[in-house]
Amino acid sequence: MTKEQEFLAYLKEISLLQEAVGLAEWDSQTGMPEEGASYRAEMSSYLSGMAFDKSTNQTMTEYMTYFEAHPEELSAFGKEVYAKTKENYDLNNNIPVDRFQEFMKLTSNAHSIWVKARENKDYSVFKESLENIILMTKEFIPLWKKEEATNYDVLLNQYEPGMTTEILDNVFEQVKKGIIEIRQEIESKGTAPRTDFIHRSVAKETQKEFVTKVIEQLGYDFSRGRLDDTVHPFMLNLNRNDARITTRWDETDFIMATLGVIHEAGHGMYEQNVDAKYDYTPLAGGTSMGIHESQSLFNEIIVGGSQAFWSRQYPLLQSLTGDTFKDIDNDVFYKGLKETKPSLVRIESDSLTYPLHIIIRYEIEKMIFNEDINLEDLPTIWNDKYEEYLGIRPENDLEGILQDVHWSGGSFGYFPSYALGYMYAAQLYHAMNKEMNVEEILASDDYSSILAWLTENIHQYGSSRKPNQLIMDATGESLNPQYLIDYMKELYFNVYDIA
Amino acid sequence: MTKEQEFLAYLKEISLLQEAVGLAEWDSQTGMPEEGASYRAEMSSYLSGMAFDKSTNQTMTEYMTYFEAHPEELSAFGKEVYAKTKENYDLNNNIPVDRFQEFMKLTSNAHSIWVKARENKDYSVFKESLENIILMTKEFIPLWKKEEATNYDVLLNQYEPGMTTEILDNVFEQVKKGIIEIRQEIESKGTAPRTDFIHRSVAKETQKEFVTKVIEQLGYDFSRGRLDDTVHPFMLNLNRNDARITTRWDETDFIMATLGVIHEAGHGMYEQNVDAKYDYTPLAGGTSMGIHESQSLFNEIIVGGSQAFWSRQYPLLQSLTGDTFKDIDNDVFYKGLKETKPSLVRIESDSLTYPLHIIIRYEIEKMIFNEDINLEDLPTIWNDKYEEYLGIRPENDLEGILQDVHWSGGSFGYFPSYALGYMYAAQLYHAMNKEMNVEEILASDDYSSILAWLTENIHQYGSSRKPNQLIMDATGESLNPQYLIDYMKELYFNVYDIA
Repeated sequence: MTKEQEFLAYLKEISLLQEAVGLAEWDSQTGMPEEGASYRAEMSSYLSGMAFDKSTNQTMTEYMTYFEAHPEELSAFGKEVYAKTKENYDLNNNIPVDRFQEFMKLTSNAHSIWVKARENKDYSVFKESLENIILMTKEFIPLWKKEEATNYDVLLNQYEPGMTTEILDNVFEQVKKGIIEIRQEIESKGTAPRTDFIHRSVAKETQKEFVTKVIEQLGYDFSRGRLDDTVHPFMLNLNRNDARITTRWDETDFIMATLGVIHEAGHGMYEQNVDAKYDYTPLAGGTSMGIHESQSLFNEIIVGGSQAFWSRQYPLLQSLTGDTFKDIDNDVFYKGLKETKPSLVRIESDSLTYPLHIIIRYEIEKMIFNEDINLEDLPTIWNDKYEEYLGIRPENDLEGILQDVHWSGGSFGYFPSYALGYMYAAQLYHAMNKEMNVEEILASDDYSSILAWLTENIHQYGSSRKPNQLIMDATGESLNPQYLIDYMKELYFNVYDIA
Repeated sequence: MTKEQEFLAYLKEISLLQEAVGLAEWDSQTGMPEEGASYRAEMSSYLSGMAFDKSTNQTMTEYMTYFEAHPEELSAFGKEVYAKTKENYDLNNNIPVDRFQEFMKLTSNAHSIWVKARENKDYSVFKESLENIILMTKEFIPLWKKEEATNYDVLLNQYEPGMTTEILDNVFEQVKKGIIEIRQEIESKGTAPRTDFIHRSVAKETQKEFVTKVIEQLGYDFSRGRLDDTVHPFMLNLNRNDARITTRWDETDFIMATLGVIHEAGHGMYEQNVDAKYDYTPLAGGTSMGIHESQSLFNEIIVGGSQAFWSRQYPLLQSLTGDTFKDIDNDVFYKGLKETKPSLVRIESDSLTYPLHIIIRYEIEKMIFNEDINLEDLPTIWNDKYEEYLGIRPENDLEGILQDVHWSGGSFGYFPSYALGYMYAAQLYHAMNKEMNVEEILASDDYSSILAWLTENIHQYGSSRKPNQLIMDATGESLNPQYLIDYMKELYFNVYDIA
């Protein structure tokens, strides 16, 4: 065995352990017997501990040192793998173990305190925990920092390599302005769509039959995946031939599960189409949160928000649901789906106002890490921003600052991924349209050229290319939010009958 | 940490790895995406390899040597754990690694050759593989042998510690004689029950609803287990709080899934009620194949074959199935279930002829290992025995010697467990009846005292007691096949209206 082969075999062990942890996680979210939870925690913690240990131990350190000194012993492929491994290694190894364990303990406790704060709808219950997590994150930032960057850039980069506040400030300003203008147009000239039929009851089995057909057509491969019930929907890939999706069903809200499954299938299709040569290396799997969301949101919003798509799929839905939607024609149905209405809660928001929810979080996170704000003031800052951007004000902290779980886990810098994914999706859609008429395809029997384009331009690369390079190569330019604004304008002007 | 605590922590690691392998196995049998199979094989083989390595490596060897020299450092509990660990260690370590790997390769290939032989209904295709497996097993037997024993005893003991051909020869002779007498009585004096309704269609969901209620009543705890669909039904326990059962459904054979689920629930209830103090040691889990089968067969045959039980459950089945069984009264239904008819295939046989299928296999396995028969003659020996004991003769090897998978995997000595389980079940039933009226309980609303008795006498001990000791303590005597003969006689004389 060459040293490179040895190194790859070692990385494979880590991957296999992570796969076992993944299966355990999937199982615990999809039907593990409830009383098995404490046993499961033991198993998962043992296996993930072993994977973490192998990622940071003396053996790994020796590989890192060796190949740093002997890059000539690595093939081109080996170099790619080494570079990504080194990146992860540095991230993990710069934090002293005892401080990392302390942080784990802190966030683990913070979660239950956050739950308690939510029950009381009272931020002050959570405030001390949050402060400690922020303090510790600030302690880690200098250890993670590799070059000149703001504190918050360091956090951003953990989810979206190469992203900066400088870029996001500009991009988000443009998006904010665009959305506010669209909202004003709708307010003054629009005709609101009919939505009274949206909550008509559709049996779970019928929803499942419908959406299963839809995602199969989109290219989600059920011989390399499966669909299960859960409470908080997710996609989890054990490997490229086993990328599982999950959903929550509500018989009086069929559109939630339908779009939810289409969303998760987008994540799954990404994983299913990564080149097999990256198997068992850190290059297997999607390259960033933002690019991953671009694939799920392409499915959910671009495809699932397309009138041509629904012109094709709605008759199927009608035929499966008996008389339920007999009196609702295609145009009424479609426009009802795409109603926009400001809401206080991110996960309940529509595709026009969604980016504003993200921008609010981005601005606040940036204040926390790049400015010296008083954490006491967070709820007021939060509420003021909702009032300013969305025209509505939370009545309590549960529908305000306590709504998302991310901060209790120390995941700062994560939220922008959602908006990045949306912007990437619109930009990819624009580029794709230069090569084919996407709406025409969505109105047809055969969606395969869409998946082929996404595989060619995004999926196949796994984590071997950084987000910016992927977007650049696929669309000919860096992130450009104008495509999202144009997309939203056209869509919502249509829905609200604005000429 | 004391040396004992270190040892227990080490054993826990092995258990956790085995638990992960178990979850992977369950998943691969219940719905893993088909294309994930080759990836799954990599993961399972990595994890089980690690578990095997830890069970046999230098560290384990040191523990074994240390505690052999320092038994005084072990608590009473530690001594129990050490003894069982040593037993497994010796079994694993006496075979040279390269020969063991050779054996694994052999049986792995033999499986596909067996499948091919079945397709051709031709033993000669499988003969060479089987010969090689037998030769290698004969090579291993002296390495496993610890005391004076026949070759076949060594194999028997791997599934049923303490069992010998001397015991089984007597016991099986008695059982064979008993069954043949009962069959002669039925033949000459019996009135065959009506069975025309047995294959009436019952929807899968209805079958599931019914049998779920039944096993909950019997004490299978769904908060510590679950029921899934599979091809070859099994129970798999990840831990005592996660003992999963599976079944195969057939809408025109509701009794297959019903009794199948009740059977697997018996295995599950055993695991769910092992004392938690044995967690993460080799003493967790059932003590032998025979005792495990005694619990599943107690459920399936004793409970599921009880007229009192059906007097209580049949009205529920009727109420769930509309008019399906409206014209069939309780007595007709029950007797139809319990028809006996000689069959060529073990897994399709009834509870009277079943032991004969096992006895045939036992006699042949004994001939293979304790006598020097020509393997060429096996199909003829097989067919002759079926003709002699059951009065029917296989027309080809598929319905004859090729019907079971066990030999292709090298599992010689396993078959007797099925018959042992049945005999133990009848003996336990007899003992239980000294303390309570089991039929009365089965006709009632509350089955809990049956589970309590089995937990008290069998389940709680896990593998900390050997089969014979459990049976002795629970029933006041060693294995006694007369209870099974008496039980079958009473049951079948009733079913066949013999006064």
